[in-house]
Amino acid sequence: MKKRTLPLGRVYRLLEPGPVVLLSTAHRGRADVMTVSWHTMMDFEPPLVGCVVSDRNFSFELLGRSRQCVINIPEAALARQVVGCGNVSGRRVDKFARFGLTAVPAAQVAAPLIAECVANLECRVVDSRWAKRYCFFVLEVVKAWIDPAVTAPRTLHHRGRGEFMVAGRTIRLPSRMK
Amino acid sequence: MKKRTLPLGRVYRLLEPGPVVLLSTAHRGRADVMTVSWHTMMDFEPPLVGCVVSDRNFSFELLGRSRQCVINIPEAALARQVVGCGNVSGRRVDKFARFGLTAVPAAQVAAPLIAECVANLECRVVDSRWAKRYCFFVLEVVKAWIDPAVTAPRTLHHRGRGEFMVAGRTIRLPSRMK
Repeated sequence: MKKRTLPLGRVYRLLEPGPVVLLSTAHRGRADVMTVSWHTMMDFEPPLVGCVVSDRNFSFELLGRSRQCVINIPEAALARQVVGCGNVSGRRVDKFARFGLTAVPAAQVAAPLIAECVANLECRVVDSRWAKRYCFFVLEVVKAWIDPAVTAPRTLHHRGRGEFMVAGRTIRLPSRMK
Repeated sequence: MKKRTLPLGRVYRLLEPGPVVLLSTAHRGRADVMTVSWHTMMDFEPPLVGCVVSDRNFSFELLGRSRQCVINIPEAALARQVVGCGNVSGRRVDKFARFGLTAVPAAQVAAPLIAECVANLECRVVDSRWAKRYCFFVLEVVKAWIDPAVTAPRTLHHRGRGEFMVAGRTIRLPSRMK
């Protein structure tokens, strides 16, 4: 995996457009991958990310217990695997094996990076007070990796019922927004 | 504005892809519009939306006091206005007048709909316990409107520093995800 470190202050530029992500978790020898679209940036630096992980998912257990995860950002070429990870439960299936995803050790967390994704954000849970009420976790990105060849990733954006928008062209406007 | 009501159970299909939205608020004769990318779905039905509104923005005051807002979804044709609303403060400028946005009365909240947007989601604040710590509000969508001519909106997705991805093509895959 020829990735470089991405400065933490630039993480928002990957997550703000709203891509479908693969959330990888691990705890006591079990790992899981979950397809997630319900996430938002909450602060720039250190980057905080709010994320809904349903308590019906195996990942909810692994995330709650390990308090660590990796947010992996897939491009459209991985669409089949992204949907596959959403269609089965990690309680029954090793999704890495089933979908040919390569688990690579992370630098700061126990959850694995997914090599096939263009970017990987190593995260720690910093606030789980809303885990019961909303299945909502606040994550801090502690280390970020990106494929240096990719400037405008062809991310997937879930429209529901198996329909995805694929990232289109880029436009630039004179903005004072960060 | 020739819009039809959108069933509340379908609201997630508009917000999940992560579009830039225009948040409109009103309180005691003052109205504001704010450009927002930091939002996420939190539940399907009734639709709950989590949203960060910085306390440096005039909209934070109006939202906190009125406890109502409208999430308006613009298409790429409105890019100039979207960036414009992010570049100035509503404390000094009437953004509706400045950017030629048409305020239309909503059905259930005091904040106005923006006619030029393809969809409008009338919202009430249902949880503001994280407003101080994270500037985070939980909104419930109580009424939704959509332009019936639009099936795959050409939404804007913020990549930071004035760079936006415009929604590209649609792909379909056999998914069990809602």
